[in-house]
Amino acid sequence: MSRFFSRRHASLTPYTPGEQPRAGDFIKLNTNEAPYPPSPAVSEALASGVAGRLNLYPDPAGTALRSKLADYHGANARNIALGNGSDETLAFIFLAFFDGERGVVFPDVTYGLYPVLASLYGVPYSEIPVDGTLAVRAEDYCGARENVVLANPNAQTGIALPTSDIERIAASNRERVIVVDEAYADFAGLTAVPLTQKHDNLIVVRTYSKSRFMAGARLSYAVGHEDLIADLETIRCSFNPYNVNSVTLEAGAAAIDSGEYYKRHWELITDARRRCSETLRTLGFELTDSRANFLFTRHPKVPGRTLFDRLRGAGVLTRRFDRPERIADWLRITVGTGAQMETLAGLMKEIVLTEGGYDA
Amino acid sequence: MSRFFSRRHASLTPYTPGEQPRAGDFIKLNTNEAPYPPSPAVSEALASGVAGRLNLYPDPAGTALRSKLADYHGANARNIALGNGSDETLAFIFLAFFDGERGVVFPDVTYGLYPVLASLYGVPYSEIPVDGTLAVRAEDYCGARENVVLANPNAQTGIALPTSDIERIAASNRERVIVVDEAYADFAGLTAVPLTQKHDNLIVVRTYSKSRFMAGARLSYAVGHEDLIADLETIRCSFNPYNVNSVTLEAGAAAIDSGEYYKRHWELITDARRRCSETLRTLGFELTDSRANFLFTRHPKVPGRTLFDRLRGAGVLTRRFDRPERIADWLRITVGTGAQMETLAGLMKEIVLTEGGYDA
Repeated sequence: MSRFFSRRHASLTPYTPGEQPRAGDFIKLNTNEAPYPPSPAVSEALASGVAGRLNLYPDPAGTALRSKLADYHGANARNIALGNGSDETLAFIFLAFFDGERGVVFPDVTYGLYPVLASLYGVPYSEIPVDGTLAVRAEDYCGARENVVLANPNAQTGIALPTSDIERIAASNRERVIVVDEAYADFAGLTAVPLTQKHDNLIVVRTYSKSRFMAGARLSYAVGHEDLIADLETIRCSFNPYNVNSVTLEAGAAAIDSGEYYKRHWELITDARRRCSETLRTLGFELTDSRANFLFTRHPKVPGRTLFDRLRGAGVLTRRFDRPERIADWLRITVGTGAQMETLAGLMKEIVLTEGGYDA
Repeated sequence: MSRFFSRRHASLTPYTPGEQPRAGDFIKLNTNEAPYPPSPAVSEALASGVAGRLNLYPDPAGTALRSKLADYHGANARNIALGNGSDETLAFIFLAFFDGERGVVFPDVTYGLYPVLASLYGVPYSEIPVDGTLAVRAEDYCGARENVVLANPNAQTGIALPTSDIERIAASNRERVIVVDEAYADFAGLTAVPLTQKHDNLIVVRTYSKSRFMAGARLSYAVGHEDLIADLETIRCSFNPYNVNSVTLEAGAAAIDSGEYYKRHWELITDARRRCSETLRTLGFELTDSRANFLFTRHPKVPGRTLFDRLRGAGVLTRRFDRPERIADWLRITVGTGAQMETLAGLMKEIVLTEGGYDA
C-alpha cells in the first residue's frame, strides 16, 4: 500500500477471481464458463468490419442493443442499462442506492464480490446464513428494511428460489431496493424480469458471461423501473459514459438473434449436469439441487482440499472456498461438455477409492 | 430520480459526451476521434479467432498486454494498470487516492469529467483558472498541498506544459498524487512517463482512444510507481476484476506492434492541424497553440454559437462548451483528414463572410 492510498480503503480486500491459466492442458471447470463458443452470428459480427470502425467511439447510450434486449424481455429500452460485465452493473447499483444510512443484506454463501463492493463504498452489510441445506430462506428477507441482494440461482450452491418468493420479498420491503443477480437464470429456466414491471423497487441483473457464452466480451445489463434505470445511468455517465465497447455492442446484439443456438446448448449443459450429478451420487457425493451451470458437491469421507488438489494434479481445475468455513469441504464444479464431465467423474471415482471413501 | 437514489448523489450532474450520431452525412469533428482506422494488425487480431474463445474470461491481469506496454515505455509490468478507457482509469485514481481529507485541484478549462468524478466520490475540488492566454501556469500547481490532475496537452485548448514543469510540480508536492492525463500526448511528441521512475507520486494516464485510433475498443492504462499501481489494482479488483475484454486485450497488443503505421498517421494529423490553423488565421480566427489532435479557436466577430450552428447545419459537427463562460465563444474542432479540414475551412470562410466578420 502506498502512502497515498485513501484511509477509507485501509481494510479493503479485493475479490479473488478463479485461476485463469493462459494455456495448457487443464480442463477448466473453475469459473463457470461455457464449454462452447458463442453463436456463429457473434463471430460474423466480429468479422463484419467493426475493426475498421474502432476509431469511432461506441454509441454511449447503446441504443440498438438496449432496444433489442427490451424486445427480448417484453420491456422498454428505458428499462435497460448496459454494463461492462455484471460486476460493473452491480458496482453501479451499490454506489447508486446503498450508503451509510441504507445498508444491504445478502446470504453468507453467495457471490464473493458483494461484501467487497459494500466495503469499497463504505456500505454497512449483514450476511444472513443460508439454512442447513445451504438454501436461502425467503422469509429471512421479507421485511428486511435494508437493501437486498440475492443471486438466483444462488452462486456457489446453484439453488434457486421460485420467483414467487422474489415477489414476496420485493412486496414486503417497498422502501428499499431488491437486486436479483440472474447470472445463472437461463440454466434454471426462470427469471424475475417480468416482476420489474409491477415492482418499482426490483432490479434484475443479467450477464452474457455464462448463458451467452461470452465471458470474454464483458457485457451485462440491469432491468428495472425507468426511474431506477435513470439513476443507474446517472452513475454510469458520471463514471465512464462509454463503458461498453463497439465490438461487444455488436456481438451482444448478434447473440440475442441466435435463440435456437443457445437453447440447444443450454440443454446440452443441463443434460450433462443431470448425468454427472447422478454419477457422483452413486460415488457417495452429496450435491445441492443446482439449477445453474455448475455442481456444488462434497464427499462425506474426502476433504474438499484433497478433492481439489487431486483434481488439479490430474489437470482438472475446480473452485473451492475457504469461507464461510462450513462450505470449505464443498467443490464448485462448472458443467463442461459431456466428455469433460465423464473425465471428471472417472477421476472422482479414483480419488474416492484411493482416499478410502468408497463404500460401494 | 427515484426515491431510492442515495442522497450523497443529490447534486450529481453526469458528464455529457459529444454527440454520437449513429449514421448519416456528418463530418464528425466533435469528439477527437481519429479519421483513420486502427492499424491493419488490429483488424487481423479481431479476425484471428478471438470470437471463438469469447466463452472464456479474459486474463484478469492482462499480463501479455501489460508486458508489451512496459517494454514500449521502458518500464516494468508492475508499473502498468489497465483500464476500460481512461475515464475508468481516472475514476479508479480518484477513488483510490482522493477523499474528504485529501482533495484535488485542476484547471477551470480542462476535461469536464474531473469535477464529475470528484462529485461522484465526495471529493472536495478547486478549479484553478487558466491564464489570459488559456494556458495552465505551472507555478499555480507547485506546492499545491492537494492532489493535482492535469491533462497535458490540456483538453479543450491543446496547450502543452513542458515535462520539466510536470517534474517541478511533482517534486514540490511529494505527499500528494500528481496525475497527468496524456490522452493527447502522442500528437505533441512529449510524455511524462519516464518521470514516473523518479517520482513515486506521479501517475500518467494514457488511452488508445485518440492516438491509437481505437476509441471504440475502450482501452487505457496508468503508469506509475509499483506501490501506486498496486493500490489501483486493489480498487480495480474490488470493482470489476475483468474490466478489459479479450478482444480489446488482443487488439491493444497488436496496435503497439504497428509503430510505423501510427507514426505516419500522426504526421498526417499534425500536418492537417498546421495547414488548417494557418488558413483559419488568415480568416481572422484566433487559435491556441494546440499540440493535440484538435484546434481550439474563436473568431472575434462571430459568436461561437453561430459558428457551431452554421457548421452543424452544413453537416460538420464540432464541440462548444457553455462553461466556463469565457470559452463560450470558442470551438473545439477535431483534426480530421486533409480533405475534411479543407471542407471545414471553406465553410468557415463562408460563415465569416456572411456573418460580416471578414475584414480581408
